[in-house]
Amino acid sequence: VSTIFELDEAVVTALVRAVTPVSAASEATADEVSERFARAAWTAIAEPGDRHAGVLVEAIGATAAFTLLLRKGDGAAMRQAVLDRGGEDLAAAELQTAIDRWSPRLKSPEVITALSQAHRYSVSLLVPGDAHWPAGFDDLGPHGPIAIWVRGNLSTLDTLDSSIALVGARAATGYGEHVTMEASAGLVDRGYTVVSGAAYGIDGMAHRAALASSGQTIAFLAGGVDRFYPSGHDALLTRIVDTGAVVSELPCGSSPTKWRFLQRNRLIAASSLATIVLEAGWRSGSLNTAGHAASLGRPLGAVPGPVTSAASAGCHRLIREYDATCVTNADQMAELAPLGQPSIDSLDARVAATRLSPAEPSSDTVRVLDALSIRAPRIPEDVAARAGLSVAAVRAVLGTLELGGAVVERERGWLRKKAG
Amino acid sequence: VSTIFELDEAVVTALVRAVTPVSAASEATADEVSERFARAAWTAIAEPGDRHAGVLVEAIGATAAFTLLLRKGDGAAMRQAVLDRGGEDLAAAELQTAIDRWSPRLKSPEVITALSQAHRYSVSLLVPGDAHWPAGFDDLGPHGPIAIWVRGNLSTLDTLDSSIALVGARAATGYGEHVTMEASAGLVDRGYTVVSGAAYGIDGMAHRAALASSGQTIAFLAGGVDRFYPSGHDALLTRIVDTGAVVSELPCGSSPTKWRFLQRNRLIAASSLATIVLEAGWRSGSLNTAGHAASLGRPLGAVPGPVTSAASAGCHRLIREYDATCVTNADQMAELAPLGQPSIDSLDARVAATRLSPAEPSSDTVRVLDALSIRAPRIPEDVAARAGLSVAAVRAVLGTLELGGAVVERERGWLRKKAG
Repeated sequence: VSTIFELDEAVVTALVRAVTPVSAASEATADEVSERFARAAWTAIAEPGDRHAGVLVEAIGATAAFTLLLRKGDGAAMRQAVLDRGGEDLAAAELQTAIDRWSPRLKSPEVITALSQAHRYSVSLLVPGDAHWPAGFDDLGPHGPIAIWVRGNLSTLDTLDSSIALVGARAATGYGEHVTMEASAGLVDRGYTVVSGAAYGIDGMAHRAALASSGQTIAFLAGGVDRFYPSGHDALLTRIVDTGAVVSELPCGSSPTKWRFLQRNRLIAASSLATIVLEAGWRSGSLNTAGHAASLGRPLGAVPGPVTSAASAGCHRLIREYDATCVTNADQMAELAPLGQPSIDSLDARVAATRLSPAEPSSDTVRVLDALSIRAPRIPEDVAARAGLSVAAVRAVLGTLELGGAVVERERGWLRKKAG
Repeated sequence: VSTIFELDEAVVTALVRAVTPVSAASEATADEVSERFARAAWTAIAEPGDRHAGVLVEAIGATAAFTLLLRKGDGAAMRQAVLDRGGEDLAAAELQTAIDRWSPRLKSPEVITALSQAHRYSVSLLVPGDAHWPAGFDDLGPHGPIAIWVRGNLSTLDTLDSSIALVGARAATGYGEHVTMEASAGLVDRGYTVVSGAAYGIDGMAHRAALASSGQTIAFLAGGVDRFYPSGHDALLTRIVDTGAVVSELPCGSSPTKWRFLQRNRLIAASSLATIVLEAGWRSGSLNTAGHAASLGRPLGAVPGPVTSAASAGCHRLIREYDATCVTNADQMAELAPLGQPSIDSLDARVAATRLSPAEPSSDTVRVLDALSIRAPRIPEDVAARAGLSVAAVRAVLGTLELGGAVVERERGWLRKKAG
């Protein structure tokens, strides 16, 4: 891979070994190093949750997939390569669209920067099969992460098998924060690891209370783990790194985007035994995490609040419409995921999942909007590279968004209009 | 009946006609008057919800049943009388126990006092089959009321076919009262009649808000409708009588007792399309109403509140353990019982009902405790008459209660010990 990518193989190998966990690094063959490098590259090329990348890498391996992409293999060639290895029969046209999405991201050796940055911040690159790889990710199938970047203690990831995700709105009330504090401390006392997304409000309180109780806590980020987001939680995330772990499937240097937040939520849901929404408005992003938990068959809980509080409307919605269990204290939360008996995908949860479809704008639309600026006009080719979409797809989305008045074309490119 | 009871038949007939609704009174035959009188008497003899009385009266008629009782028919005779009319095969021994319960109440012509008092307060006596008889009572089967005493506008009872019961704890918080006010006003605006129990707290607010919105409201009491309980709601109940109705299955002059409150709750649940618990502690009596609603297959809703508020713990319990629907506003409450389409006993509700068994002390125990005083010692015969139990049953219960330290025997009879 390094040869084709015109990189110094020794540098690549050294960097990959530097970010490889000790247990795996000592006995890594050249092929394994190449595979790790290719997986690292894929985390920069494909957006999180990209099913085609997942199927391709799973079937023919990250290196082969990456090589095929570099050699400008077309959809038909990729389809055949996957079929030859007994993989899923993907439509060649869809694969071609995927290739058009991935190709604009091949122009710069971003992955080298990401690896250097990871090395500088003592970030580990974990790939499926490694020790500490979160077992819950397996349930994501081809939507699962190709690799994850971990800052902190790898062994903390082992405690995900006794973890509960506590999530909620950024715009939390004093009530929500109080309840989250009690829940997090209570779960830590019962031996659970607290998983969350490090956002302001509920997430932050969940981590903080876990730390205050000397408990294990793990944060999943929507951008690279070298640059903490939100920046106001820099000190908190640094403390989490000290005793727990901060995880992302995006390489260092990546910015969080709306799409990445939504996909980050699936990691929170998949990695933990159960997900609890502590406080959430009617359209809170935490309902998206809840949706992922339900569709994965994970138990889902929601904490009720005053019906007069808009900040609890999303929780009541989950209880009413999505069969979330009403939970009022840590005991009841723990009941959703009893320790010592692994969570089983219940029929009930599967049934609930079929009814659950969190309101999400089309993924391409979110990605294009993320890639546009409200000040700097950008041409479709630029937007395509930023969004990880094909130029053709970007043009189509821009057309639709223009009709809706969300974007506007200027002489030098496209602008996103200010909301409201 | 009047002959056997050694009463002046003309007086009895005049009194019965005076409390008979106009529609039924004009064409009432002597037999019908007798039947009405006997049903009135049965409301004084049998405690609410007495299944044996219900089966007996339903099978052979109130007059015949009353006559048989007066003539000291034994259990075997009563069983045969019921069987002869195609009724249920009741165990003779159980019927004998029932007779022993009823007989102590035959000693005084209480019913005449009740009728006079009813006449004085313009109370109507409704029996099954009368216009305005609440159709929902039919679902109670042999546990249904033998007759009801109604003060106010009989036509208001017709609106029970579009009514929702709003119930909750006496110890309501400002939050609970606020939510109840919004709920009651909102339901009235949508054309519903608000049913409740006239207690302090949630019940009172439900009635008040309905009146304030010029809506229909009906209160079910656990004692006679001549003496309002609680007395602090005298003015409120008087206003309900003006535009709505106040209903009880106990004759005038009857005091409310714990047993009667529990049985009154079944009338609230049975008469309305759905029951909503707005605020209730872990052991609130309103959970008993909820239990009746669920076992009758009526939709059951509960309003969530802060998990930090003990006053909402019962509501959360209903949502968690009894499959009550989480409802947060009048729209969602109305959804439980859409107008224009009669409520159907859903399988779900039936299933939920099998899981629902509100914590209730044994009925006999409650009745005996109700019948005891903490100051005036009472002999078992006296307690039996007050409780509507046989003397033997009272002795057995007293023995158990004495073991538990709840009662104590003095020279002149039994005393209830002060709680705590």
